[in-house]
Order: sequence, then structure tokens, then C-alpha cells
Amino acid sequence: MAAYSFGWCDVGGAPVTAPGGKGLRQALAVLGAEIAGAPPQAGVPAAVAVELVHTFSLLHDDVMDGDPVRRSRPAVWRAYGTGPAVLAGDALFAQAVDTLATSAGGAGAVRLLSAALGDLVRGQADDLLFAGRPWTGPRRVRSAEYLPMAEGKTGALLGCSLALGALLGGASPTVVAGLDRAGRQAGVAFQIADDVLGTWGDPAVTGKPVHGDLRERKKTLPVVSALESDRPAARRLAALLEADGDVARAAELAEEAGGRAAALAVARRCGAAALAELDRISAPARPVRDLRALLDGVVARSR
Amino acid sequence: MAAYSFGWCDVGGAPVTAPGGKGLRQALAVLGAEIAGAPPQAGVPAAVAVELVHTFSLLHDDVMDGDPVRRSRPAVWRAYGTGPAVLAGDALFAQAVDTLATSAGGAGAVRLLSAALGDLVRGQADDLLFAGRPWTGPRRVRSAEYLPMAEGKTGALLGCSLALGALLGGASPTVVAGLDRAGRQAGVAFQIADDVLGTWGDPAVTGKPVHGDLRERKKTLPVVSALESDRPAARRLAALLEADGDVARAAELAEEAGGRAAALAVARRCGAAALAELDRISAPARPVRDLRALLDGVVARSR
Repeated sequence: MAAYSFGWCDVGGAPVTAPGGKGLRQALAVLGAEIAGAPPQAGVPAAVAVELVHTFSLLHDDVMDGDPVRRSRPAVWRAYGTGPAVLAGDALFAQAVDTLATSAGGAGAVRLLSAALGDLVRGQADDLLFAGRPWTGPRRVRSAEYLPMAEGKTGALLGCSLALGALLGGASPTVVAGLDRAGRQAGVAFQIADDVLGTWGDPAVTGKPVHGDLRERKKTLPVVSALESDRPAARRLAALLEADGDVARAAELAEEAGGRAAALAVARRCGAAALAELDRISAPARPVRDLRALLDGVVARSR
Repeated sequence: MAAYSFGWCDVGGAPVTAPGGKGLRQALAVLGAEIAGAPPQAGVPAAVAVELVHTFSLLHDDVMDGDPVRRSRPAVWRAYGTGPAVLAGDALFAQAVDTLATSAGGAGAVRLLSAALGDLVRGQADDLLFAGRPWTGPRRVRSAEYLPMAEGKTGALLGCSLALGALLGGASPTVVAGLDRAGRQAGVAFQIADDVLGTWGDPAVTGKPVHGDLRERKKTLPVVSALESDRPAARRLAALLEADGDVARAAELAEEAGGRAAALAVARRCGAAALAELDRISAPARPVRDLRALLDGVVARSR
């Protein structure tokens, strides 16, 4: 199941080359080590650990959301069953902890990971709870609630990737904390970009069913922002969502109400905040330049 | 959800006193520290960590097995939903790792836990796979396969409880390893006792539906041993199980075929092996005596 989810084999175990992840978290871990002035290899245990945690969280996430498709293939729970998928996730988590506990970073590295994991779980729990809340009325989800949820769900592990790499590279606590903040801000931008792609993106590119978030009543920033606007389309969108109407039409109305533009503005702001954190760190020029380019790309992918 | 699963509150969060666990793993952790010559308090972080991991594994286990009842109350997934139960388990796991990473045991303690977790997951995976295999024929599950499964599923965490407590108490690697082996043997005995209670025990005492294991086609040692016997009842049992017949009658036939007695003999042997490990450890008399009594009780509870 682990090899399947990494894209290394088919359901039966025969080798294939299927789409794996983007490798973003591993790249961040290695860049973190280089920013600390260490050779990139120093960040490899961090890269392995965060990729294992990321894969574990995807396995459990797809179980929780009932998402049948991941990276254009059946999700692990669809291919192997819910129980085995939960268990495979647990095994990947144990392996991630083991990788760090045997690394040069020792208990400090494990602590960074377990703290990020606590935030990740809290973010995912909020995401689940938000899906159960109404689109409108006093119990609606506000954009101010979205941001800490996205920081936990997506930002915590991106921040941890950079911070862990830097820690293994011997960086000071100040640099480790600054990179953690930069990664968290980038993570919020990344999550917003994901929301925009999930609502208006090409499913052939995203590998996920179109409008899945809307169907699952996920409170994504573009839709929440659209509902908070005072344009006429916002009221039509509210009525349509409350009536469980056509999701393609809802996406159109959300754009008309300015939700897409508002969300992308927030993403740009978070991206800029991430880059501002980097300005405060004195580090070798090359890895910082690479990290800037990477974070720029994270924000740009939804435009 | 965590408080509910510890028996501290009802589903809505109102305080109640519901049955929690037996506290076996915590007791082992504290005794491990005392066997190392440290005060019992030294084992508390180990006790907290192993209880968190135990609860996490119960939450995920009940999701995987579809068990609706745990400790005479609705299982967490029944009370709160599958997704939240998976997530709550993940949070408990993160908390367990965090507890050890910030303890005096540091990375070494985390490594003991993550290794036990790897074994636990492997044991649970085998348990799941065994349930999907037939009762008879060449693909049947043999008692020789049952033992490593039970050691992983139940023994690994009991061994880890003792070993972690001893590690935090400053024990030598030899003592830590000896206690780990003792706990693993005791765990197999414990699991067999659990199997016997699940098949012939009083549900009012076990807190679980009677014959649940048989219904789920779990390959427990008493039933596997019964099927391996050459008594006439073994053949009748095989025919009944293959026909998905009455589970109460299957339990009767398993006893008639000597499955209960054979399983209990193995449990006694494992219990004796655990006690023999203790004989090889030089340690203060009082905690060793307490540990002996505890391990004796583990094996005795099914008689």
C-alpha cells in the first residue's frame, strides 16, 4: 500500500511509474539544511520523514473525506479497503518517527515533527467540522476561521519540512523558527491555491474530481470569501448552496461574487509574508534564491 | 473523543465515570522504572505514552474491525463517525511521541516506541489478513502463524511498556531487552486469554459482544487449535465454520475439540517464559514480585 501510494506499483504490486507527489516537502527539507550552511544530504532524514508523514496524512484524509481518487488513481482505501488504509497510514507514521529518532537531530527533531502533527490533526479536524456547518447564518464559517485551519492542515508540515532540514543542518533556534513561520505562511498560500484549483482547475491536471470540495461542503476560502461579499452574486450563491444546487453553477457564482480574486489576494499576501521571513535570515545566497523560487511557484500555480 | 475513550465523559462531553482500561500498560511502565532501581515516578512519561498509544490503537482497531462496542459503550467511530475516530487516533499517537521526545529518555525512548508500533501495525495487519483467509484447506491459518501475529498485536506494546519504564529509570540495555522479551511473552499469553474470553467469556465482564471474533472470522488460537486437532469435533467444527453456521455451536465444538485447553496450555507456557526472563534480571525484590503477580494475573484471568 505504501509503494502504491508513492506511485511505485499497481494495486497488485507490479512495478509501474504512476504520478507521485510534487516532492515539495522534500525539497523544502533539503533547502532548509542548505540554508543552515550544511550539505544538502544533511536534510535527507527530514525529507524522508516529512514525505512519510505527508503520505500518511493523505491516506487518512482520503478515508475521512471519502475521496475515491488520489493522483488520478483509486485512493488507497478504495483499492485496498478502509481498515488496511488506516493501518498503512499508521505504519508510515511510525516509520517517520523512527527515521527522525535515529537521525542526528534526535529528540529535538522528533519534537518538531510531533508538534507539527498536532497542528495538522487540529487543522484536519477543523476542516471536517467546517464541512458539517452551514454555508450561511450565524453558524457559518468565516474567512478568519479558515486561515488557522489552513495553517494547521497544510502550513504546519511545510513549516516543519524547512525547520527540520535546518535543524539537522545545525541552524540556530532563531533560523529554525523563522523558517517554520515562512513555511506555514507558504502553506496557507498553497492551500488557497489548492482550493482555487479544486473549484476552477482542470481535473486532468489536479488528478481530483472537479468540484469535489463543493460537493463535500468543504468551506474553502474562495467560496467563503464569495459568500462574505456584498455583490448580488453572493446572495444567489448562498441560496444555491443552501438548496444543494448545481455545483458547476455555484463555482460560476463564486467567481462572479469575487471569491476567486479575494482568495488569490490572500494567497499573495501569505506568499509575501513567507518571503519577508526569509529576508530576516542570514544564509547562503543560492539556497535562499532556490527557496524563493519554490515559494513563488507555490503561489503562482493557481494563477 | 479522547476523554470519551478514556471513560472520562459521555459523547456530549459531560463528565461521567465509565469503565476505562485495566491500567495494565501503565503499571508495567512504572514497575519497569522500579526494576531499574528508580523511583516509580521516573516511569510516568512511559506510562502516559503507552496508554496514549494503546488508546490510539483501540480507536483504529475498532474502525478496522467494525466493532461497534468497546468497554460496554459505543466505540468512538460509532459515537462520533469514522473520520473523526481516525483523526483522534492520530492525535493521540502524536501526543504519545511528543511525551517521550520531551522526556529524559529522549530519542532512545522514541525509538523503542516507534519500533513497538511497527510491530503492532504488522500484527494488526496479519490479524486482518488472517480474517480474510479460509478456516480450512491449504490457505488456512496455522497456530504457528498465530503466535508472531499475537506477539506483534499485543506483546510488542506490553514489552515496550516495561522496557520504556526501565529505560527512563536508567536500566542497562541488557535489562531493557530482557524486560521487552518478558512483556512480549506475557502479551501473547494475554492475547490468548482475550481470545478465550471472547469465545466463552461473559459479555457483561468482557464489555464486548459475545462470539464477535468468530463472527468476524478472526483466527483466534482456541479455534485454530481446535481445527488442528484430530478429534471428531474438529471435523464438525470445520464443516460448521465453512458453512457460516451458528457461532454459539461453533464455540461448543471448539471446546469439545480441545481448542480451549490447547490455547490455555500455550498461554501458560508463554507466561512461564515471561517469568523465566525475570529470573535472569538482577533487580530489587519488591517490584519484581509485583511484576510476577501482575503477569500471573494476566494468564490467570481466562481460567
